[in-house]
Amino acid sequence: MADPFAGVDTSDAPYVIVSSDTHAGLQVEDYREHLESRYHRQFDEWAAERHNHRRLMEEMNGDYVEKWESDNAEGLRGAYDPDIRDKELDSDGIAGEVIFADGDAVTGQESPPFGAGLAAGQITDPELAFAGARAHNRWLEGFCATNPPRRAGVALVPIIHDIDESVREIETLAGKPGIKGIMIPTMWHDKPSYGHPSYDPVWAACAEAGLVVHTHSGEGDWDSYNDNLAQFVLEVPFWTHRALWQLMLSGKFDKFPGLKYAVVECGSWWLGDLLWKADTSFGANPKVKKLNAMTKGLISKLPSEYVGTNVFIGASTMSREEIRRRHRNGIDALMWGTDYPHPEGSWPHTRERLETDFRDVSIEDTRLLLGLNAVRCYDLDLPALETIAAGVGPTPEQLNQDPDLRTSPDAIREARWWFDDYGMEWKG
Amino acid sequence: MADPFAGVDTSDAPYVIVSSDTHAGLQVEDYREHLESRYHRQFDEWAAERHNHRRLMEEMNGDYVEKWESDNAEGLRGAYDPDIRDKELDSDGIAGEVIFADGDAVTGQESPPFGAGLAAGQITDPELAFAGARAHNRWLEGFCATNPPRRAGVALVPIIHDIDESVREIETLAGKPGIKGIMIPTMWHDKPSYGHPSYDPVWAACAEAGLVVHTHSGEGDWDSYNDNLAQFVLEVPFWTHRALWQLMLSGKFDKFPGLKYAVVECGSWWLGDLLWKADTSFGANPKVKKLNAMTKGLISKLPSEYVGTNVFIGASTMSREEIRRRHRNGIDALMWGTDYPHPEGSWPHTRERLETDFRDVSIEDTRLLLGLNAVRCYDLDLPALETIAAGVGPTPEQLNQDPDLRTSPDAIREARWWFDDYGMEWKG
Repeated sequence: MADPFAGVDTSDAPYVIVSSDTHAGLQVEDYREHLESRYHRQFDEWAAERHNHRRLMEEMNGDYVEKWESDNAEGLRGAYDPDIRDKELDSDGIAGEVIFADGDAVTGQESPPFGAGLAAGQITDPELAFAGARAHNRWLEGFCATNPPRRAGVALVPIIHDIDESVREIETLAGKPGIKGIMIPTMWHDKPSYGHPSYDPVWAACAEAGLVVHTHSGEGDWDSYNDNLAQFVLEVPFWTHRALWQLMLSGKFDKFPGLKYAVVECGSWWLGDLLWKADTSFGANPKVKKLNAMTKGLISKLPSEYVGTNVFIGASTMSREEIRRRHRNGIDALMWGTDYPHPEGSWPHTRERLETDFRDVSIEDTRLLLGLNAVRCYDLDLPALETIAAGVGPTPEQLNQDPDLRTSPDAIREARWWFDDYGMEWKG
Repeated sequence: MADPFAGVDTSDAPYVIVSSDTHAGLQVEDYREHLESRYHRQFDEWAAERHNHRRLMEEMNGDYVEKWESDNAEGLRGAYDPDIRDKELDSDGIAGEVIFADGDAVTGQESPPFGAGLAAGQITDPELAFAGARAHNRWLEGFCATNPPRRAGVALVPIIHDIDESVREIETLAGKPGIKGIMIPTMWHDKPSYGHPSYDPVWAACAEAGLVVHTHSGEGDWDSYNDNLAQFVLEVPFWTHRALWQLMLSGKFDKFPGLKYAVVECGSWWLGDLLWKADTSFGANPKVKKLNAMTKGLISKLPSEYVGTNVFIGASTMSREEIRRRHRNGIDALMWGTDYPHPEGSWPHTRERLETDFRDVSIEDTRLLLGLNAVRCYDLDLPALETIAAGVGPTPEQLNQDPDLRTSPDAIREARWWFDDYGMEWKG
């Protein structure tokens, strides 16, 4: 791999923090004007259903909803108000952000029409899935334009519903300055899986347009959970990162070398073990000749070598253990995120979290995780972000870091222990 | 947890090795006499299909098949010949074994009728699934009786196909001396998932009969792999251990405290991280109150506390990394296995494997992993196994172990780092 630390500033300059996982969206009715008028009748029905959903959430979990919404009343309006949003980013120390749909995770009042955001896979009418996606994408383009260097928008393209229409939408999105990626349905449901060649025009169009493909957590195999939410929570990472292996092991990063994929709000703890398994089963491990044949001709590199070039991880608010595992999982691929304005992440207490969790981490590692990996993944305007960060970013000293702590040149090799264990050549 | 090391012999006495994962089965036609005659017509059709399957395997992978079968010609006949089998166990250093169906993993010539072993979930006619299972179970009972202390049989009960019939079969199996467990289909396909209350009579009957419930690797979501075997290989652990969380998180180990479950030939590397996630999300973590509510009333203990009491791991031939992670994953739950007579495991080179991989492991840890955990899980006859081991088991010295190396009393707590990280009380 290229030296991920080359040129990384180890001074006490403020961190350029890019939150690789934020959410934004209009309140339900406000999407109406962005939707083609021929869908307004269905939209009004859907909006009524959304309000019923909120009433249900209030019945089930009223105290929690009321406390969350009253404690964070102003900040939550940043889901659609750009001035409030910038204030919240500032106070959290965030320079830039990668924006997904569905601003309201608690009662779902900021979902794109017909659930075309995180629930797009569950829509049954392909026409509505695309209509809802286009409505959000139109609004998102304008929203990102309110502060261009700061906002990278992830548009919605429900590829399982219509591949030709998807390619048209990607071509429409290409070159729009605020749009840096697309989100596809996390699961493929009853459609071909993402390794199937029928999706190749989608990957080709994204690679051509420089749009990063995303799956974001949210879906699961609900039929198997018997209303037991714990089953969902434990499985949701599998369903979210499953697309990564579909793309990688079917050779899409070889066929479309410019293709980038990021898995978001799925943590990163699972990655190292699956790279171990994939590297030793499908890569250059001389001890596993029988298995090597399985991907012969489809992939040209070790699975771990795609991480940091084609594969990135929107790891959201990393746990301390995930920070400890950073060299194994991909110091050049992991991207911190706050999940603003959702309750599962670090907002509105990101500074306190960083002050606690990064005290044992080198400055160069921290710069990659908190911002520079995202800058590279999304091709963001680093000088402009540095200017913003100068006013808001915490410094290494503020994160209680040792200015003399440097990352060992062997850190990555030592963390990826399977190269030694299985006698595999380390290419560094 | 109870002290897993209490009373464990740290002398140089030979190891009592129990392979928690072996396979046995008749050659296809030889199952005919164990099958009710009303199924003979369908059996003959199925047997012809099996021979076609072998021809296909020979066409695809002929060199490999020929070399494997000629290199191991005699040992492979131990799939159904008890005298040959005992010779192979002896030379591998194995005292006892836990026997699953499907002796031939390479060309499938020792599958129970209609694929009622590892492929039972894919059978479409429930009547045939049970007929095939009963044929194997009848034969297995006799096979285990050829050397009672040595052989623990795992019978077949395809619970997704008929719950009442499953309970009847479990009641028939109860108390048969060689039968120590049942294998259920790894996946539930289009039937209710294993956390669903409709299966409760099955768990009740197994707890009552003292039969350990198993899922064994082999199935996957084939529709999603586009003939790319690598996708299968990387996902198969998820599909195999999925049942564990269904049972645990839906409270089956609380409702049926005597119920034991083991996941087999699925490795153990994935376990520690999922225990971390489950303990901190659904257990007693004071920081995650919102999530705690998800399993409130269903589970009474931390997820990790069911491991080693209700949950066991037939980890087969552990990798060196899995051996290093033994205290995190469950020093009182992990069970070594050779996978005899399949090619993926350590047979016929188990001794060499043990001599290399256990040199840094304490004697007490090794005794648990190689045999004592299985003795406890399956309630095996330890004195009789010790007599067999006296003639065949390798000694600590033969495994190049340091006789003075003792396991630290803090080893388990240190390995389960999440108790400290999340401020959880350690009950140890």
